[in-house]
Amino acid sequence: MKAGIIGIGHSKFGRRDDVTVQELAFEPFVEALNDAGIRRQDIDATIIGASPVYMTQRSIAGPITEYLGLNPQPVWLTEAACGSSAAALRTAYALITAGMHEIVLVLGVQKMLENPTSEILKIMGRSGDVQFEAPFGTTFANYYAMYANSHMAKYGTTSEQLASVAVKNHHYGSMNPLAMFQKEITIERVLESQIIASPLHLFDCCANADGSAAIILANEEKSKQLSDTPIWLSGLGAATAPFSLLTRPELTTLSSAVEASQIAYAQAKVNPSDIDVAEVHDCFTIAEIMAYEDLGFTDRGKGGEFVEEAYLGGKIPINVDGGLKAKGHPIGATGCSQVYGIVKQLRGEAGKNQVDGAEIGLAHNIGGHGQYCLIHILSR
Amino acid sequence: MKAGIIGIGHSKFGRRDDVTVQELAFEPFVEALNDAGIRRQDIDATIIGASPVYMTQRSIAGPITEYLGLNPQPVWLTEAACGSSAAALRTAYALITAGMHEIVLVLGVQKMLENPTSEILKIMGRSGDVQFEAPFGTTFANYYAMYANSHMAKYGTTSEQLASVAVKNHHYGSMNPLAMFQKEITIERVLESQIIASPLHLFDCCANADGSAAIILANEEKSKQLSDTPIWLSGLGAATAPFSLLTRPELTTLSSAVEASQIAYAQAKVNPSDIDVAEVHDCFTIAEIMAYEDLGFTDRGKGGEFVEEAYLGGKIPINVDGGLKAKGHPIGATGCSQVYGIVKQLRGEAGKNQVDGAEIGLAHNIGGHGQYCLIHILSR
Repeated sequence: MKAGIIGIGHSKFGRRDDVTVQELAFEPFVEALNDAGIRRQDIDATIIGASPVYMTQRSIAGPITEYLGLNPQPVWLTEAACGSSAAALRTAYALITAGMHEIVLVLGVQKMLENPTSEILKIMGRSGDVQFEAPFGTTFANYYAMYANSHMAKYGTTSEQLASVAVKNHHYGSMNPLAMFQKEITIERVLESQIIASPLHLFDCCANADGSAAIILANEEKSKQLSDTPIWLSGLGAATAPFSLLTRPELTTLSSAVEASQIAYAQAKVNPSDIDVAEVHDCFTIAEIMAYEDLGFTDRGKGGEFVEEAYLGGKIPINVDGGLKAKGHPIGATGCSQVYGIVKQLRGEAGKNQVDGAEIGLAHNIGGHGQYCLIHILSR
Repeated sequence: MKAGIIGIGHSKFGRRDDVTVQELAFEPFVEALNDAGIRRQDIDATIIGASPVYMTQRSIAGPITEYLGLNPQPVWLTEAACGSSAAALRTAYALITAGMHEIVLVLGVQKMLENPTSEILKIMGRSGDVQFEAPFGTTFANYYAMYANSHMAKYGTTSEQLASVAVKNHHYGSMNPLAMFQKEITIERVLESQIIASPLHLFDCCANADGSAAIILANEEKSKQLSDTPIWLSGLGAATAPFSLLTRPELTTLSSAVEASQIAYAQAKVNPSDIDVAEVHDCFTIAEIMAYEDLGFTDRGKGGEFVEEAYLGGKIPINVDGGLKAKGHPIGATGCSQVYGIVKQLRGEAGKNQVDGAEIGLAHNIGGHGQYCLIHILSR
């Protein structure tokens, strides 16, 4: 049994004080419905990917379902920190390939910026270990700063290489009208920006954001019937790593990403070199460099040099929609946003950012500081 | 493809200041592992059912997974308010029958009582509509009080009938060592207790609690191989109702429960009269009376009279483990606790509360004030 993506939608990411969370969910929903050419009554079930702790309204799946007119179909929410909507997509794939539903809506949505920045930092830090690590001041940037310091010490990765990830992703973000940031930056600009957690500068970090993205998944029969260009989920992998850094033997890699990608490659019967385009979870520049290595796109320690190969025309164009770095990172929406980007590429609809002839794409969604990883390989 | 329950576990419900949330998760986990006769390495994936907003530690699935030694297997959390762990079970069923995993752990866990009561009330009320309804003072008891008033006005249901639900469930709770409350109560005691939201008295309401329960689900082959008495998930239904009361045409029924149960009955190929034992979501006494009707156990308006038929020896023994009323209601744990109770019955392990020869059982888990309903029918 196969499952195909027949509709996609994506809101503008950024500060979205103009909408409620329900209205924000509506934007990619209606776009995805129209893209699929179906009515809302055709949706058999909905899985919402979001992190509930940023919202005053509790249990947001119910209000969203009502607002979108999806009662009485079932809905629930999945949460895996920043991997929440990839977990929703995995759930939808299971529901469809189990034969429980024919058409499932996956909706990633998050409004973070209603909270003051200090509150966001606190909430985000609380996905790290509040018992043993938070007392030592572990914000999210701190975790990734430790990864960066380890990578630099072990492999000689440089601040310039980290900065070059930001330069690439802002370059592509400048062509993406849905991105939060649409300006080019330079290596100098990154290195001159404020230190957030040494060695990470302000421009090494992605931004808190509001945003939403939707994916409509259907079974094989409905996919073929409703779409001329269904994009198939051909490989799925999910894995976890120890939550606390105390118990991780190595800080230069996320073992969850290594495990999850190997499972996904095996199911899709492809190798890393077969991937034509990828979206990786660049919440910090070091995260993208680690992803290159964890996904097998380059050798261990060579991630810093691989940035040049991640441009259009390089070995594997990566985050050519701007990535989390330029698009912004509305926690629950990011997983769906990545898949949206890959679907656009495999359909040949990516415009100026199109990877010629892309047939196989990969989305790499990390939750927290690597305790969750969910990989989806998509094929034309 | 079938999925069978091969292991179950259940913590003591109540005030559990003696454990962290990880330790609370461990209790039913290790019991379920031993019950199934497997090792933790045999678990292929874990789905945690919980409501994240009661916890300081964010994204609790990661810390629990690490504590239980389940890395690197995948895990994520499902949330549907009070229906969170039934959503986890439905997810696990999909993962297994889709062939994605062979053995999946479903773990419902919640620690509520670390929060002050005023905070719990506030959090709970926030699963109602914070935009249009909360300004009018809708706590959870208020919602169910409106249902009770409507049921009384339309059908002549009495306060004594409501109280009789509490009397029955506390009667059975008195025989359940895992229940929060293990004392018999009388109709007079209920009616003399403080009014919480008219017409609901204190003893018409279930209690906030800490607790956890675990279910190990396996595919057909593993179920038969590992268990002499697998309990099969033979019918699953899920549905939603409009979130805001403003848009519901009728307050004496939860349309989500009607829809979900009809789907589950059809899959299991049974009628309401075939059910030998049931667990229904009695967060308030009126909720159990509405459930009798919504599930088709009795006619509309006859729920108040049906209480007498819900004792052992009656037409359909219901909540004979004490229900939410006597066990307590740790949001995320309740769905798994209900299924635990049914599995005990179908295995013939329910001791003093055993329904003779029970072969088919039903668990009815409501989320919020009826915006979610998940039904599971289990068969020997």
